[in-house]
Amino acid sequence: MTRIDINEKILSKNDMAADRLRKRFKETGTAVINIASAPGSGKTTLLEKILPQLKTRYRLAVIEGDLRTENDANRLRALGVNAVQIQTGDACHLEAVQIEKLLDDLQTDNLDLLIIENIGNLVCPASYDLGEDAMFVMLSVAEGDDKPAKYPTIFHNAGYFILNKTDLAPYTDFDIQKCLNNALSVNSKLKLFTLSARTGEGINKLIEAIEGIIKNKKEGGVLK
Amino acid sequence: MTRIDINEKILSKNDMAADRLRKRFKETGTAVINIASAPGSGKTTLLEKILPQLKTRYRLAVIEGDLRTENDANRLRALGVNAVQIQTGDACHLEAVQIEKLLDDLQTDNLDLLIIENIGNLVCPASYDLGEDAMFVMLSVAEGDDKPAKYPTIFHNAGYFILNKTDLAPYTDFDIQKCLNNALSVNSKLKLFTLSARTGEGINKLIEAIEGIIKNKKEGGVLK
Repeated sequence: MTRIDINEKILSKNDMAADRLRKRFKETGTAVINIASAPGSGKTTLLEKILPQLKTRYRLAVIEGDLRTENDANRLRALGVNAVQIQTGDACHLEAVQIEKLLDDLQTDNLDLLIIENIGNLVCPASYDLGEDAMFVMLSVAEGDDKPAKYPTIFHNAGYFILNKTDLAPYTDFDIQKCLNNALSVNSKLKLFTLSARTGEGINKLIEAIEGIIKNKKEGGVLK
Repeated sequence: MTRIDINEKILSKNDMAADRLRKRFKETGTAVINIASAPGSGKTTLLEKILPQLKTRYRLAVIEGDLRTENDANRLRALGVNAVQIQTGDACHLEAVQIEKLLDDLQTDNLDLLIIENIGNLVCPASYDLGEDAMFVMLSVAEGDDKPAKYPTIFHNAGYFILNKTDLAPYTDFDIQKCLNNALSVNSKLKLFTLSARTGEGINKLIEAIEGIIKNKKEGGVLK
């Protein structure tokens, strides 16, 4: 019982911080995307592919989460993207208070888009609201096609499902349609994107969706 | 401060249960392997490949961990392997008390080998001792070659590093040698295995290593 009470308190503290973030992002019209996946599904590679296009049209920044290293923020900075790294040590998710601390440094009040790349983990990030407008969950076709059923919470909480590394599909036993159906059976409202961040196949549709999220935020709409 | 104290208490409770497990497994000469990786690195596929051989020579059982579904235990049962599934709900790791509860059902006192496939997660399982003789951490070449530096705790705590899906290497930008060096720079004592669970390439060396762990346990030695 004690543990459950404590978890509720921690979540509640996070929810309060997420609400503060949401209020501020609403005032400034900053669209916020939270991306979660297993380690190695290709979150950073996808950002390397889409941000050069998006940054010509929008003011944007990225918060990178990892246990250790600045590798991912450095990869994005090399492309001229404003990126900051959070190193969590041994923590398995990002929390809203960590985002709050970076708002001034990133000058988020002047941004059209803030992308948060969460810790590589399909479990813990599902339970921590970061004040985002849209949560993206990603898998790659090198993983198993039954993952949505095995990790349902994050697929339930996300609005967008990105299936990456379609270029590897011919070399694996992964059944793309079965995986998409599996995801929809967990959350029938998921918007689906199949793409290869490596080859660029399918990324334009995702870029259009992100532009829709930015436009919706400017017009005061609420997504999730 | 409160959160740190609580975590210490939880870990200490787990450590006590792990010590009880270790004592019992020592008495019965049961070798225990704990396997951790990201979701989709191929833990279950590897077990499907190696267990048909191992079960002709050893009495063995498998504990499968997932948030939801019996999929993985069902896959192993289809091969005639004694497998039981733990479904953790939203918990990101297995704990020693969960293993303790299954010992009688699995008749572990009569086993040569117990394999525990942990939750697909490179973060949380690192901090929970399950009384194992050997911890295996696995990556696949479809993930990034810098993962050991990003998730150092689990690579530090493991004794064996399995790099899976070498059959996909020609189709990715993954640098195998760089990844192995990266892992060794975190933990120079890691025993390295590069293999493809799908094609079977390299699995014999791993089977030999597991046989060595079983032999060592029978002789009363201590590995980790």
